[in-house]
Amino acid sequence: MNRQVTVVENILSANDQIAERNRATLDSNRVFSVNLMASPGAGKTSVITSTVAALQQDTRIAGIDGDLATSIDADRMAAMGIPAVQINTGGSCHLDALMLNKALEQLSLADVDLLLVENVGNLVCPSSFALGVHLNILIASVPEGDDKPYKYPGMYQGVDAVLLNKIDVLHAFDFDMEYFELGVQALNPGLMFMPISCTSNEGMDKWIGWLRQQAADYLISLGETGAIR
Amino acid sequence: MNRQVTVVENILSANDQIAERNRATLDSNRVFSVNLMASPGAGKTSVITSTVAALQQDTRIAGIDGDLATSIDADRMAAMGIPAVQINTGGSCHLDALMLNKALEQLSLADVDLLLVENVGNLVCPSSFALGVHLNILIASVPEGDDKPYKYPGMYQGVDAVLLNKIDVLHAFDFDMEYFELGVQALNPGLMFMPISCTSNEGMDKWIGWLRQQAADYLISLGETGAIR
Repeated sequence: MNRQVTVVENILSANDQIAERNRATLDSNRVFSVNLMASPGAGKTSVITSTVAALQQDTRIAGIDGDLATSIDADRMAAMGIPAVQINTGGSCHLDALMLNKALEQLSLADVDLLLVENVGNLVCPSSFALGVHLNILIASVPEGDDKPYKYPGMYQGVDAVLLNKIDVLHAFDFDMEYFELGVQALNPGLMFMPISCTSNEGMDKWIGWLRQQAADYLISLGETGAIR
Repeated sequence: MNRQVTVVENILSANDQIAERNRATLDSNRVFSVNLMASPGAGKTSVITSTVAALQQDTRIAGIDGDLATSIDADRMAAMGIPAVQINTGGSCHLDALMLNKALEQLSLADVDLLLVENVGNLVCPSSFALGVHLNILIASVPEGDDKPYKYPGMYQGVDAVLLNKIDVLHAFDFDMEYFELGVQALNPGLMFMPISCTSNEGMDKWIGWLRQQAADYLISLGETGAIR
């Protein structure tokens, strides 16, 4: 048996065990949690700030932001008045369950309804490391091109929804929406797919409505009723 | 001593040894070689096809393309009439020296002046794996945003030039060129920085001229004279 493969398997198994602990911690605090993944510059932080703006009147939100360096993104969350924890991965290309575990310790989870986790900008590695959150969302963007589901199947497969951001600049790019969605659906038949723009706000109502419904369903699954507070 | 760290160090050391072998193979065939790295969708393949179009009249070019899946990009190179080898990394987030080594075996290097290597779309991992090529180029793009040098310093540091692609859509994005270049120069004082557009061709003359000069300098360093043929 290949020794290196064994090491990788052990690391993933350890990660999954911590992810399960994260999930238990989140559930015991009734915190609905969302992991946002994307290529660098697709608009993760913009989606988060737009989502915070739409929900923060009636929802207690917290943010955790993963970056190789800087606290630019967590600063943007904190500027909106929500508790935000920055994880500097120190060169690592993804968040893992242990990093999230340490970040969760820095939040007062009893005071949080919705946790938004911004992963490291990367269309490959984050898909291999479960965090223990309730939803995994992939944010694509028009300027990246319509062939990305075909070229990065590991990331596009197994997510709970795909947002296609920056549709306000569709006119400036040679982007075939039908070809893109075909790739998404081939990897995830029936997946929720939402074209949006954080600049023009087009499509944001549908995303926010869908997210509210997911959060409500989550509370029902825990034996509670009612929408996200 | 940490056992996991040792394993990683050994892997990198093995990679570097193979990278040195690749360099020797390339030099013995007088093949000037360029590794193009970028975020997914920044335009690596477009830069390559534009470069091939500009140089193929008087330069024998070959391409090696790394992707998780599909041969879309190598097909685009082959469609231009140049020998192209596709490396499907099978999920790996970067090219490494061994992958390049195997791909080099599939090319008739004696008939190649310029080798263009397209890395996996990723702003993190490829920077850790030397391939043995002569130039490492980073292609950024306007839609990614002007904060990327600050957020992905490992990738921006240590490259030989930065191309900023898609400047034809600058008007559609809130992109501060000065802030971007400040980040690039802070990490690499004096680095060659070239804004370009593969759509409008703006800036391409400068890039092609610079690349020709680098190739000529390379031949001189080998004890030969003359521009790239």
